[in-house]
Amino acid sequence: MSEKPHGDAAPSRRAVLGWGGAGLALGAAAVGGTVAVAGAGEDGPSSSDGVVPFHGRHQAGIATPVQDRLHFAAFDVRTKDRAELVRMLKEWTRAAERMTAGRAVGEGAYGGIPEAPPDDTGEALGLPASRLTLTIGFGPSLFDDRFGLAGRRPDALEDLPKFPGDNLDPARSGGDLCVQACADDPQVAVHAIRNLTRIGFGTVAIRWSQLGFGKTSSTTPEAQTPRNLFGFKDGTRNISGTDTASLDQHVWAGGGNAGWMAGGSYLVARRIRMNVETWDRTSLQEQEDVFGRDKRRGAAVGRSGEHDEPFLKAMKPDSHVRLAHPDSNGGAAMLRRGYSFTDGTDGLGRLDAGLFFLAYQSDPRTGFVPVQRALARSDALNEYIQHVGSALFAVPPGVRDEDDWWGRALFT
Amino acid sequence: MSEKPHGDAAPSRRAVLGWGGAGLALGAAAVGGTVAVAGAGEDGPSSSDGVVPFHGRHQAGIATPVQDRLHFAAFDVRTKDRAELVRMLKEWTRAAERMTAGRAVGEGAYGGIPEAPPDDTGEALGLPASRLTLTIGFGPSLFDDRFGLAGRRPDALEDLPKFPGDNLDPARSGGDLCVQACADDPQVAVHAIRNLTRIGFGTVAIRWSQLGFGKTSSTTPEAQTPRNLFGFKDGTRNISGTDTASLDQHVWAGGGNAGWMAGGSYLVARRIRMNVETWDRTSLQEQEDVFGRDKRRGAAVGRSGEHDEPFLKAMKPDSHVRLAHPDSNGGAAMLRRGYSFTDGTDGLGRLDAGLFFLAYQSDPRTGFVPVQRALARSDALNEYIQHVGSALFAVPPGVRDEDDWWGRALFT
Repeated sequence: MSEKPHGDAAPSRRAVLGWGGAGLALGAAAVGGTVAVAGAGEDGPSSSDGVVPFHGRHQAGIATPVQDRLHFAAFDVRTKDRAELVRMLKEWTRAAERMTAGRAVGEGAYGGIPEAPPDDTGEALGLPASRLTLTIGFGPSLFDDRFGLAGRRPDALEDLPKFPGDNLDPARSGGDLCVQACADDPQVAVHAIRNLTRIGFGTVAIRWSQLGFGKTSSTTPEAQTPRNLFGFKDGTRNISGTDTASLDQHVWAGGGNAGWMAGGSYLVARRIRMNVETWDRTSLQEQEDVFGRDKRRGAAVGRSGEHDEPFLKAMKPDSHVRLAHPDSNGGAAMLRRGYSFTDGTDGLGRLDAGLFFLAYQSDPRTGFVPVQRALARSDALNEYIQHVGSALFAVPPGVRDEDDWWGRALFT
Repeated sequence: MSEKPHGDAAPSRRAVLGWGGAGLALGAAAVGGTVAVAGAGEDGPSSSDGVVPFHGRHQAGIATPVQDRLHFAAFDVRTKDRAELVRMLKEWTRAAERMTAGRAVGEGAYGGIPEAPPDDTGEALGLPASRLTLTIGFGPSLFDDRFGLAGRRPDALEDLPKFPGDNLDPARSGGDLCVQACADDPQVAVHAIRNLTRIGFGTVAIRWSQLGFGKTSSTTPEAQTPRNLFGFKDGTRNISGTDTASLDQHVWAGGGNAGWMAGGSYLVARRIRMNVETWDRTSLQEQEDVFGRDKRRGAAVGRSGEHDEPFLKAMKPDSHVRLAHPDSNGGAAMLRRGYSFTDGTDGLGRLDAGLFFLAYQSDPRTGFVPVQRALARSDALNEYIQHVGSALFAVPPGVRDEDDWWGRALFT
């Protein structure tokens, strides 16, 4: 990817401001093996200036390295006019191309026409691209009779079943569309969602949104496994973004009955409230039994290293690691990309905190659903968590070039 | 500050985990001129490993360089037993010493007594200190008749008046105590508030809390001025953390009628909701008129550079910069340390976003109060913002050493 991928003379957000530094050009760096991350511009001082290429066979933000922060938004479509929705998706795509490259939306961030609102809301001006990725998904409700898409609904986009223990808030569930914005700087992620929302004003409206402050999974095998809010490492066996065989098997969708989804994926989003106050008063032994891991190193019961293969039969039958393991679920595996969240305090003075679980898979019926059935039935962790939000999205394949747009294969 | 300031053999969070790297020792680096930031440990790879010294004449987190992220919590005291409150403050102080040094709370984060809950909740194990600062404050309500402190209430800790346009939510206002946790990594800030809350269980309870994702002010003159969610630079003239004359004049409290506050400061916290959807539809001209600044560079009206002194009489009388300027307020100045927030979406699909305004001053009666009176009356920005939360705290001077504790001069 060149530094000016759109044949576009507009400089980066940083250069616009005249804050050009020493002219240090960052070369393209191989990160995670298959994913090239290029410097944002002539003045990028560090790898966090990185630009993750927007165009490609798959959407970025799935197998690409996991960024530090998240802003996720689910939208309801407000129009009944299919052409208007398509127009917005095209406009979103062009804006996403610019923002992921570290540019402002449009050419008139300031100085355009003083009598008109600026094209860009401005709070990310001067910030590097920060590895921003924007990933779109289409919810089951989009395939009703409003837009003539009923016949194009993939079989795999079947509504998730109700699981035992679910306590779902409809105001935090579902959505016709979603956009996952991940970046190393939360201001860049928030800016992206805000500008897409603004472009979509009148056509779509935010149904719910979620900020995530710390990643709980990694797709780069060499990275440290992050800890969740229970203090445990719990994404050790995640699918690596460089393991193309596993990605093809578990993450990328084939066409099935919906050819437009080939090269896409299915995203399950679950807002999981964690009762941290209760957890914090349980013994270390109980905590380790619940997960089936040693807290210090993350090693499975009876093993010494985090990455040693667990011996499932040695573990308590209701331990989380045993129940979630592919060998307990007919080989089911998902690429997890979740984030910890804290949304202040509830009415009882308890932290409204937990895990915003995000998992990509080739088919939820053989991925999330069987695993969650097993967990919902037996997981010892259920005493300390509750699923309070849920959504499912068909994530289409990547945007190929400047003439392509989000959803083209679905709508044409 | 040495790497083991407490004569404590406990290694840093990172070393405990055996993730020691190349043994790169970071020397003490002068940051912001007067503030020494030392590396957290033997394996600290970057300046974000930095430890901001906890002990000193003033509390850290005021004049020290502003970190990227915030978790702020206000607490109600639940006990009526003064001795119990004092015990908790001592325990908080010891935990704060450890956490700001990048250490876990207590010695038993794991591996202590399996039958007991771990001393530390664990989610920051393996993370560097990330310049964590913890700053305590005492609200006016603490000085009622519960703890025999009525006679020690500083005159400057007078309840804030009600300002025109205030729409304050009691559930997001006030508090007997507050702790401001700032760090470059939000997981480190959230971890600190959570562990203090846990230590205080039964003695205090969180009344409200606020996460801030992006700083809107800087105390280091050479840093770029950050942009707020209206896309403007609006902290250009902030007091610098190295300008000891200004700090002595405007930020550090004298004793007044409360000798225990000498070297402390007064903190005003205001949750300011910003109506970003409305703002985003206004013209660039209107936006620039409202602030009295050029959006691109942040220069005041008629000036060319951000740091050029504004010519107030050339500005519209209701412009924000003119009304907030010290010359319009008898020289009143505050050290601002606010953060942008986004707490999801309100019931109307609008972003619940804005500025969590934090300002330190030697006396609110000559600092925040007159400035806010002028702004509340006339500021053109009032059409786009609303103050929805408010609190005031007396922030005592720093903890001198390992025998000192938060609030000692007040309680003894």
